[in-house]
Amino acid sequence: MSSAPLARKAPLRWGVNYTPSDSWFHSWQDFNIDAVKADLESIASIGLDHVRIFPLWPLLQPNRTLIRPAGIADVGRVVDAAAEFGLDVSVDGLQGHLSSYDYLPSWVTSWHRRNIFTDPDVIAAQAELVTALAKEVTSRENVLGMTLGNETNQFAVARHPEKHVTTPAQMGEWITTLVDTVKKVWPEGMHQHSFDDNVWFIDSSPVTPRHAASLGDATTVHSWVFTSVSRLFPAGHPARTLFADYLVQLADSWAETPTRPIWLQEIGAPYPAVPQEQAADFLEASLRPLMDTPNLWGTTWWCSHDVSRKLADFPELEYTLGLLDSDRKVKPAGRRLAEMIEAEKRNPTVPVQRGTALSFDSGDEATGIGRSVTDPSGEVFAAWLELAARGEKPTLVRESKLADAGYLAARGINKVLTAGQVGARPAATGDVPVVSEANIWAETVEA
Amino acid sequence: MSSAPLARKAPLRWGVNYTPSDSWFHSWQDFNIDAVKADLESIASIGLDHVRIFPLWPLLQPNRTLIRPAGIADVGRVVDAAAEFGLDVSVDGLQGHLSSYDYLPSWVTSWHRRNIFTDPDVIAAQAELVTALAKEVTSRENVLGMTLGNETNQFAVARHPEKHVTTPAQMGEWITTLVDTVKKVWPEGMHQHSFDDNVWFIDSSPVTPRHAASLGDATTVHSWVFTSVSRLFPAGHPARTLFADYLVQLADSWAETPTRPIWLQEIGAPYPAVPQEQAADFLEASLRPLMDTPNLWGTTWWCSHDVSRKLADFPELEYTLGLLDSDRKVKPAGRRLAEMIEAEKRNPTVPVQRGTALSFDSGDEATGIGRSVTDPSGEVFAAWLELAARGEKPTLVRESKLADAGYLAARGINKVLTAGQVGARPAATGDVPVVSEANIWAETVEA
Repeated sequence: MSSAPLARKAPLRWGVNYTPSDSWFHSWQDFNIDAVKADLESIASIGLDHVRIFPLWPLLQPNRTLIRPAGIADVGRVVDAAAEFGLDVSVDGLQGHLSSYDYLPSWVTSWHRRNIFTDPDVIAAQAELVTALAKEVTSRENVLGMTLGNETNQFAVARHPEKHVTTPAQMGEWITTLVDTVKKVWPEGMHQHSFDDNVWFIDSSPVTPRHAASLGDATTVHSWVFTSVSRLFPAGHPARTLFADYLVQLADSWAETPTRPIWLQEIGAPYPAVPQEQAADFLEASLRPLMDTPNLWGTTWWCSHDVSRKLADFPELEYTLGLLDSDRKVKPAGRRLAEMIEAEKRNPTVPVQRGTALSFDSGDEATGIGRSVTDPSGEVFAAWLELAARGEKPTLVRESKLADAGYLAARGINKVLTAGQVGARPAATGDVPVVSEANIWAETVEA
Repeated sequence: MSSAPLARKAPLRWGVNYTPSDSWFHSWQDFNIDAVKADLESIASIGLDHVRIFPLWPLLQPNRTLIRPAGIADVGRVVDAAAEFGLDVSVDGLQGHLSSYDYLPSWVTSWHRRNIFTDPDVIAAQAELVTALAKEVTSRENVLGMTLGNETNQFAVARHPEKHVTTPAQMGEWITTLVDTVKKVWPEGMHQHSFDDNVWFIDSSPVTPRHAASLGDATTVHSWVFTSVSRLFPAGHPARTLFADYLVQLADSWAETPTRPIWLQEIGAPYPAVPQEQAADFLEASLRPLMDTPNLWGTTWWCSHDVSRKLADFPELEYTLGLLDSDRKVKPAGRRLAEMIEAEKRNPTVPVQRGTALSFDSGDEATGIGRSVTDPSGEVFAAWLELAARGEKPTLVRESKLADAGYLAARGINKVLTAGQVGARPAATGDVPVVSEANIWAETVEA
């Protein structure tokens, strides 16, 4: 059951994670503004309104006390180039992790290894870097804000070969410190942290759903079906195209403030889970169900340009994720997105609150222990899919909020079911596979 | 007892390991030919004839199949700039390890970790890189040759936190493959590999003394008293200033070919083992005893310019190792070296073979097991020091060579003693401390 339609405060935003067509992020080393402009022009041709950009931490800050002015200035030049093509820019600070590769400066690795989340000197240096980036771009009119870094949680997850051991409390402090640092010099920006779906599903992840849904100005969602959904559900199963919507609703359920913005900051069509000729359909089928989410800020597809085959060792999926190929030609998924954006301009999706909510026990919210109840192998996801199949357009709600009538009313929830009441059978039992593309790459190499 | 004086085939070479005064090796990222020229001019002012230079591997080859043409070209530009000041250049390929920092590209670390000495794809990529470097510089008249990388053995030693496990046979193959690769495109250069003194002293080191003294065109020696000698022998003890000579003689003893060149490729005056006001005396006292070694190619001091205090986290000793400070002003040690070079030009040191040799059991030369008998805590070093104190100017000889009269004659050895016959008491018993500046840094951080 849906509540009454709402008015959108601002149009849905449509963007792309910008992966430079020539030399990927290594292009920062041989910065070529003409190549950047050609990329951005090709991105703008799809009708997108923003890009998310990724400088590399070791290149910007090769020594703890050396932030390269030229590197910072290049970030500003990308922002200016984007303005020429009507694109806004969101800047990620600490990369960090990108497409299976880790980039950490030598002053926190090997002999100099220090915990990047808890060492006071490291945090002070990170604060210097995000401050330098914020100062560089804040006066530009086409900047949106900053994300602390791409999926920074990955350096703290159990599966990481060089995990930085961190408690939820320490991680909360780290995120808060750096978001506050950015806000100090750039108060009007929309600033956030980002993470993969371990944060929603893995009990031991030190970044918790509470961190996800309370720190920073928006809750970010990265939706990748290859990590577990495509392993649990066969090709053609609606679980695959509904997963992004599920994550958006889950993100919504963890927020204390019902109006907190949600940014679907990454979603892609990963081969072979999504065959290339189905990428356009996957894109549309994944985005349509969630576009009416009232507090959805926007969607940022991963990624702009295919990684060139000239570059080695990427997980296979990275070579084909682009809306454009590495020659800047629009691919079918890019054309489909362009059509959706065009249609959306003509006839904007009406935001609709979801009356039906599936409740779940959110466990110990301070540590996140218990969150795994919502992972894709469990009965919550199965029940949510079943409700969706019945045409309910379900959302999710934490049991701990069920006694809060004001909260339920604010979200428009008027019908609450438990997974037991729905009675759907989970796709699989046992542990959810805990993987990432980096794991997949490692498995490939070991094989 | 010394044999008759010999004639030198070529004058002793005098050089310095070039550490850029502004931003250290991070200056490759913001390559400024004027700053390079100013550095090289200040180096030439001391009277030196060559520099050893160090590009950074991750900057030159950020992806396995991406070698940055601009990065390679910058190496060529440094060579050309050196020519303007009458300096020859030796190029180190794979950095690798420098001053406690490890620089490995992201495609061999973390999720992409692969053994950098044995993985066929990695070796092929390394071969591509050293080939690109060799091709860039080989036609220049002022290039000397290439070293595979600075102390590449450090990535394979037991104490390394992320050791790449390698057998002596594998390491021999790796060095041979890459030296042969360089020779193929640059046959006339003097090419070598380099390593710290673990290779001479630590039984488990996969780079063996045999590799040191047989692979490449010269045997390199890196002499650093802080690793163990300054811990074993008190300030003022002759062991400290004779250590470089000992290493040179030890290198000589491991060569099958008595005329094989020895390059004292690194030696420095590390604070606090060497107080700064004693650096000039330490320099002269360390170099004088070994200058008459007939097959000594030359000496290359570490380093040209102090690391700027603007850069953080270097081991304390790195901030004061320069012959010049970070403002390019010549320091007392630089002036002393200039005086020595000037005097050497007027009155070259006459090479002298050493008649007296201390013999040692070299153990299993294929694996290097047994080499630790010569470490600075043992009776061999103690006996060698005792002979030196008696004015014998001793060299060293492997027991396995004592029956080879031709070999002994070629080296001019006419008197052989065992450590037992000399009867000196070692400075310390038990295990030799296995340290490096990286360890020292790590200890500091942990403390």
